[in-house]
Amino acid sequence: MSADDQRFGLQRHVTLPGPLPLDGGGRLAPVEIAYETYGTLAPDRGNAVLICHALTMDQHVAGANPRTGKPGWWTQMVGPGRPVDTDHFFVVCANVIGSCMGSSGPATMDPATGKPFGMIFPVITIRDMVRAQALLLDHLGVDRLKAVIGGSMGGMQALSWPATFPDRVEAVVVIASAARHSAQNIAFHEVGRQAVMADPHWRGGDYYGHEVPAAGLAVARMAAHITYLSEAGLTQKFGRKLQARDAKTFGFDADFQVESYLRYQGIAFVDRFDANSYLYITRAMDYFDLAEEHGGLLASAFRQTRARFALISFDTDWLYPTRESRSIVQALNAAGAPVSFVELSSPYGHDAFLLDSPEMNRVVAGFLGTAS
Amino acid sequence: MSADDQRFGLQRHVTLPGPLPLDGGGRLAPVEIAYETYGTLAPDRGNAVLICHALTMDQHVAGANPRTGKPGWWTQMVGPGRPVDTDHFFVVCANVIGSCMGSSGPATMDPATGKPFGMIFPVITIRDMVRAQALLLDHLGVDRLKAVIGGSMGGMQALSWPATFPDRVEAVVVIASAARHSAQNIAFHEVGRQAVMADPHWRGGDYYGHEVPAAGLAVARMAAHITYLSEAGLTQKFGRKLQARDAKTFGFDADFQVESYLRYQGIAFVDRFDANSYLYITRAMDYFDLAEEHGGLLASAFRQTRARFALISFDTDWLYPTRESRSIVQALNAAGAPVSFVELSSPYGHDAFLLDSPEMNRVVAGFLGTAS
Repeated sequence: MSADDQRFGLQRHVTLPGPLPLDGGGRLAPVEIAYETYGTLAPDRGNAVLICHALTMDQHVAGANPRTGKPGWWTQMVGPGRPVDTDHFFVVCANVIGSCMGSSGPATMDPATGKPFGMIFPVITIRDMVRAQALLLDHLGVDRLKAVIGGSMGGMQALSWPATFPDRVEAVVVIASAARHSAQNIAFHEVGRQAVMADPHWRGGDYYGHEVPAAGLAVARMAAHITYLSEAGLTQKFGRKLQARDAKTFGFDADFQVESYLRYQGIAFVDRFDANSYLYITRAMDYFDLAEEHGGLLASAFRQTRARFALISFDTDWLYPTRESRSIVQALNAAGAPVSFVELSSPYGHDAFLLDSPEMNRVVAGFLGTAS
Repeated sequence: MSADDQRFGLQRHVTLPGPLPLDGGGRLAPVEIAYETYGTLAPDRGNAVLICHALTMDQHVAGANPRTGKPGWWTQMVGPGRPVDTDHFFVVCANVIGSCMGSSGPATMDPATGKPFGMIFPVITIRDMVRAQALLLDHLGVDRLKAVIGGSMGGMQALSWPATFPDRVEAVVVIASAARHSAQNIAFHEVGRQAVMADPHWRGGDYYGHEVPAAGLAVARMAAHITYLSEAGLTQKFGRKLQARDAKTFGFDADFQVESYLRYQGIAFVDRFDANSYLYITRAMDYFDLAEEHGGLLASAFRQTRARFALISFDTDWLYPTRESRSIVQALNAAGAPVSFVELSSPYGHDAFLLDSPEMNRVVAGFLGTAS
């Protein structure tokens, strides 16, 4: 292991032959997967934990992101001595298919044409993402997961795991998530997609090698970002505070700090994310309805598994509010699955799952048996 | 009165010389005001009621809109035998300045250049809108209002009236509104403005006579429209229902009914509203902070007036939630102003104030003394 490997984790990329059959009817082949691993797989291969990432995140869960140099997005949760203890577990985190951090997605090359897929890339589902992760685990020689863990869209994958591969998961942690996208969730995503598609630089998704639809993607991110924060959190952080000049300009500059903050969020996002991937992944989330995949009854999704579950929600999360977690708990109860559930208090809305929360860390450590 | 006048109400337009001094420091002259009146001004001129409209509404509160042929936007509230009884009151509703339904706004002609103002139009405030309404009432010979009534942005104007002209208002009805825009309110408006400005057809606001920034304005409207509805209302109306073909397309068409509905809302809005007016009016709302205008203490805004107040909020309105109304009630109490307040139950979110609500009608009729 080189010094860089230690700093960044083991960054890996694999091209699997597939084909991966997709919920939409097509097949993906080959399947590119970019992933990182932390810790060492035990001789009995029984210590693997899969971390599933959210919409715009990546495989760099605990190691620094080599492109940005920034720390991983969940270093307080995953690492030596952390709740997901890499001294103890072999941790895998893979970029979801449809994304743009190295796994197959609209920006990767279509072997049939030698050009980026663009909108020819097949529409994928959360279950397709999970099936791609299973292919990767096959490749790594991991039959069975000690645990699968995710927040937000990562929680959807974590829920989909025991429903899709009931014998391959022992424990499931679902944080700030839902078993289906609500009408309001879909509505906000549709605003974002329309913002991207309204940008003339989008060019029907065929913008690779040209100017990217930056303005549209920035607007999409701004709208989404509001849903990640609580009203109270925004008031606490920004309220009606003006920018440094401390006076209204009676113009259309960013007078209020919250405007400037949102504009920055939009611009920064464009630098790190592909607009087409944003379309594909939001679509996968909108399509997600675990009950529908199992005859309309959520409990049916969990009848085959013997996994145990932990659910965590945050009281100010209005994107995936506590009632969504409660309905999952009820379904797990109906299916006879062991489940613990806690609603944590936080001013930070949906984003709370990404922030350092001693309570969240304690719940996960307790559930995984790593509490000291 | 012609037959058309009876059907449409008395549509009027007046060019007042002004100048209207503006909060931003400039002056507007002349001041164009498009308005409608219903009923007859009493000989003692003591029966006038001013209705203030919301962001994208117009002066056609009770009579049909002559452009669309559609009924007025508040016919269940204003008309013969209605809570705001036009057999009893002389009702005035004027298009706010900054808007695009006939009053001075960015689309009206700048006398200095003979071309539309565009972004040269001065940034205006809620108080500027109210001052323009006062000019109109001067013109109509109305010294004193029996009542001023408004919902949403109309409620902001209604609140601003007794603060700006304490001797000219006897009663104030504020529905589904707030005394200041919150950080989240500003954030959503900023998304809309950035969506408009990101549209290359916006051309710095100089698009009159050219293609309009339709795509950007439609995205702005879609984002705003979500905030007008409750999560539960969206779920009840649309849930995850698919379009007629009743199957996912695994593409980016509007598969879900809520997507199709939102797209329609965006497109329909572009036909009836000017993009620059959207920028100006959202800015006026974001700037609104009645306490700030009065030394930081909301109660100070009401110390000069002897008006009595009625406030109504809706329990599922998350744009201007009940706590915003409560803080106004507390300020009115502190100022010693008579106030009644009720939170009504509705599944429809912020939009509830525009819908037929027998409870809302009863509260307003009781307050105005028109209950039968």
